[in-house]
Amino acid sequence: MATLGTVVLTDHPWPDVSVERQLIESAGYQLIAGPVIAGSAEQTEKLIAQHNPIAIMTCWASVTARAIAAPERLRIVARMGVGLDNIDVPATTARGAWVTNVPDYCVEEVSDHVLALLLCAWRGVTTLDRQAKQGLWQPAAAPVLRRAATQCVGVIGYGHIGKRTAHKLSRGFGCRVLVHSPSLVATHADLTPLSEQVFAVSLATLQREADAIVLNLPLTPASHHLVNADFLQACAPRRPWLVNVSRGGLVDSAALIEALDRGWLSGAALDVIESEPSPPIELLQREDLIITPHIAYSSDASLLELRQRVSEEVVRVLRNEQPLHPCNSI
Amino acid sequence: MATLGTVVLTDHPWPDVSVERQLIESAGYQLIAGPVIAGSAEQTEKLIAQHNPIAIMTCWASVTARAIAAPERLRIVARMGVGLDNIDVPATTARGAWVTNVPDYCVEEVSDHVLALLLCAWRGVTTLDRQAKQGLWQPAAAPVLRRAATQCVGVIGYGHIGKRTAHKLSRGFGCRVLVHSPSLVATHADLTPLSEQVFAVSLATLQREADAIVLNLPLTPASHHLVNADFLQACAPRRPWLVNVSRGGLVDSAALIEALDRGWLSGAALDVIESEPSPPIELLQREDLIITPHIAYSSDASLLELRQRVSEEVVRVLRNEQPLHPCNSI
Repeated sequence: MATLGTVVLTDHPWPDVSVERQLIESAGYQLIAGPVIAGSAEQTEKLIAQHNPIAIMTCWASVTARAIAAPERLRIVARMGVGLDNIDVPATTARGAWVTNVPDYCVEEVSDHVLALLLCAWRGVTTLDRQAKQGLWQPAAAPVLRRAATQCVGVIGYGHIGKRTAHKLSRGFGCRVLVHSPSLVATHADLTPLSEQVFAVSLATLQREADAIVLNLPLTPASHHLVNADFLQACAPRRPWLVNVSRGGLVDSAALIEALDRGWLSGAALDVIESEPSPPIELLQREDLIITPHIAYSSDASLLELRQRVSEEVVRVLRNEQPLHPCNSI
Repeated sequence: MATLGTVVLTDHPWPDVSVERQLIESAGYQLIAGPVIAGSAEQTEKLIAQHNPIAIMTCWASVTARAIAAPERLRIVARMGVGLDNIDVPATTARGAWVTNVPDYCVEEVSDHVLALLLCAWRGVTTLDRQAKQGLWQPAAAPVLRRAATQCVGVIGYGHIGKRTAHKLSRGFGCRVLVHSPSLVATHADLTPLSEQVFAVSLATLQREADAIVLNLPLTPASHHLVNADFLQACAPRRPWLVNVSRGGLVDSAALIEALDRGWLSGAALDVIESEPSPPIELLQREDLIITPHIAYSSDASLLELRQRVSEEVVRVLRNEQPLHPCNSI
């Protein structure tokens, strides 16, 4: 059957593509789905060159300048998520195609996941459940547990997700929350109250006072390895927990391991690791890490919403309408 | 050294007794500490008979009528916690001794722990972290994850802890909360709003509508095996999670296992099990259970507070003052 063109979905970390196929094909286009786990940049370039798509939908695969250069008439690269670090945005803009994302996507899920990881750390759940699975019931061997209301949490990044995380911590649990972001620092003196129990602070104040530090910011050249040896040493006197639900590249893994070995951190809870999807096994197996495999964005509700909204955005652009969430100007 | 009398601490699920010893001995009494893990009822009876105490402090050990009958001049049995199900209160009252507890103790900790267990269930943290410890990074194999704001939570019991749990769920996460307690049912029609997103309901409504059911009530003859086969079958259409942070005896373990095997529940998260401290290993090792060893009450803050407050209550009674938190009338 002749179609109006081909849409390539580079990767889809969910088992089937029925939602995407239904929306794309009923608009008259053909959907070509890549693997569940994103291939390498080269594999993705090859997939795109082979199918000559009019639109690219991507979850985690690297969409390089080379991938973007290949199709004859590319109209849109649609990110199935928030961050754009896997897409060469300038190259896409240069050839006159839209880049879109879903900026208000998975705000509840990621902020829920931060709370899940923090409470797991404070209440010892993963450690104690692991002991139970070994047949042990040893309350006296439990780690030191914490009352959430006594904990001061530093949140770095104050977009949709950072704000909702601060809300859940302060309003739900009575935590003191110290927020740091470049835009807040420019306009707010250190310790300016933002809402009840939530304060804008300098990075130095956050490092000095936080019992847990949560990363809720995008990965950019400026934020790459924000958490390095210097950052971690500055936190050491308070031995915080570190929580990363944003992008692995924000944290220098080697520096993290050294900080754990030196006792600079109480532990870390990571949904993202810079070497994913194949993190070193010695990192996965550390008992002072809580690890989930980049699923903070996911829920039954969020996934369906994401898949529908991105498919509709692609169809919208292919019908020559404006995208709802453009990330570039063309 | 001669003392004014002996205080027996039947068990102490923390490593040392320095806090208790300092307060009791500086008041002129001798402290005799039993084991970390509570002994059997017979062992506790023997400990008490041997030391002829003027006061008994107890955490989890059974303090039976026989134990209470042994000392020559017993003035107080002080529970180090909230529930009184391990103390024969009528026998203590009959011999003219006080029973005391710490009614407002660990409200934050237990309600934090409920949220930790629920979020662990909804966000798959224990399951996914266990996979990581096996060296696996498999996002596509994750269980179905949930957005907290889409979940309806039934809370059974509406004392200090039940109220704080409902607050954290509704105000923090936007969950709909259905509360059931005998006293509420007597005075509130089904689905009467109590606060924003919190409603008083009948047990049948809770069983029909809740995606998770949290037990926040004391163990009494009336509540023993509240969660039995009939209870669980009534919940089956919705396949809820079950969370028990109160007392193991509220749940019939055999019925729970059968309900899990039949798929009536999505899973259960238990801080208490009726056969603790030696629950069957096949229960501890089930992958559809999240288990912590009766530590929901614990934190660095709460433990210190508890140990100080109970020691001070004992000294207060031994000085012929009224206890702050009497649970009987003598």
